[in-house]
Amino acid sequence: MLPDISILDNIAIILIRPKFPENIGAAARSAFNMGLSRLIIVSDKKPSFEPMAKMATHKAAHLLDNMEVHLRIEDAIEPFSYIVGTTARRGRQRGSERSPRQIVKSIEEILPSNQAAIMFGPEDSGLTNDELKYCHATSAIPTADFSSLNLAQAVAIHCYELYHGIIHEHKEIDPAPQLATSFELEGMYKHVEEALVEISFLEEKNHNYWMNNIRRFLGRLQLSSKESNIIRGICRQFLWHSSQTGYQKNKTG
Amino acid sequence: MLPDISILDNIAIILIRPKFPENIGAAARSAFNMGLSRLIIVSDKKPSFEPMAKMATHKAAHLLDNMEVHLRIEDAIEPFSYIVGTTARRGRQRGSERSPRQIVKSIEEILPSNQAAIMFGPEDSGLTNDELKYCHATSAIPTADFSSLNLAQAVAIHCYELYHGIIHEHKEIDPAPQLATSFELEGMYKHVEEALVEISFLEEKNHNYWMNNIRRFLGRLQLSSKESNIIRGICRQFLWHSSQTGYQKNKTG
Repeated sequence: MLPDISILDNIAIILIRPKFPENIGAAARSAFNMGLSRLIIVSDKKPSFEPMAKMATHKAAHLLDNMEVHLRIEDAIEPFSYIVGTTARRGRQRGSERSPRQIVKSIEEILPSNQAAIMFGPEDSGLTNDELKYCHATSAIPTADFSSLNLAQAVAIHCYELYHGIIHEHKEIDPAPQLATSFELEGMYKHVEEALVEISFLEEKNHNYWMNNIRRFLGRLQLSSKESNIIRGICRQFLWHSSQTGYQKNKTG
Repeated sequence: MLPDISILDNIAIILIRPKFPENIGAAARSAFNMGLSRLIIVSDKKPSFEPMAKMATHKAAHLLDNMEVHLRIEDAIEPFSYIVGTTARRGRQRGSERSPRQIVKSIEEILPSNQAAIMFGPEDSGLTNDELKYCHATSAIPTADFSSLNLAQAVAIHCYELYHGIIHEHKEIDPAPQLATSFELEGMYKHVEEALVEISFLEEKNHNYWMNNIRRFLGRLQLSSKESNIIRGICRQFLWHSSQTGYQKNKTG
């Protein structure tokens, strides 16, 4: 079943006291790119519009227009039944943190009858323990040791995983190109063989050995009908050209 | 088997004619965070150091120090046996593009005996067809319709998928916390039951009905040993307190 992308309207991105309006703009752009529409800010000051809008680009401008700004975290989280706090991976919390990919699975399970939010702390300090206590789960992006993601990257990766897990993975797989049938492939091999005999690449004593090698690597390519026809066309053209120029292998060779 | 993170040294990020040195810096930071170390630029001018280093942060400074800068794409790609070009998802190419997650699987298969590169075009125009012709595969990040990621986000998501697929997924799962045994749980339920009888929450005619409900939701919690002990402690303390204050339910109730 193809999920309707509007199911993502049940998910909000909440930024707690972001320091740089550029990061709010980048979050809006990431959210929009991944089909999300709800951005909520908890802050005691109105973020400066110019740098925010520049990073969002005009495409995600409506997310900024509709953005909620709350003074208190308690007001921001009211509608949500499942709140995920994001943290940098810390040794002492091992076991309680999950990866964004695991988190998305648990969010997907409660949609569409519930609303979920993913919450990000300030750039420098992250969420406090007091803020994490509102969260039902904690998400940490797997990284190499001693590393730190910036806020915009952390938001981008969470939005990406939400879209990937909830929408993209359920989409029908792109239809594979029409692969050549065995009949087409055998016709092609015959043409290739003829051309290789013509240039004396295949000679009697090693004919099958080389031809089998060639079949093996052409076979691995999973040629489409069209591609096998291209190869046949080349062989045909070569054989024609060869007959015109009078170059003829000594067939008794 | 735990893969050694140094296996990622076989993978390079190549930026073709990036316009903004900030994006080179952001790419360095993303790469470093995800255990990658090789950054290659194809450009006819040396990128300005200051804004690049600022975005990289000092942690990823060594990636900039070791960064190769080439004039020609042909020189940049020489060591690589598998080159992935990144594109925005375009309708007419459907079928030939794969998602970063699929791409990472195919990269993983050829490591460590081969070197692979992921190539990104300029911010505004992306890779040209002429540049894409060097690529063995094409990667497009799944997004909602009509959207466009910026270069830094696209690099971040690819680096994240590389680390996730090649290192993180093979790591041993964090040991689950020590869950309460059935013996511990039954002891806890007994204590809970005693306390609920004490406050007349459980009465004879609905005793089992409510107690089963309570068992069901406490059971769903997958309580750890420690947590079941906390709940027992509360019940024990309540019962003690209740006996001290002389509040006693009429046991014949």
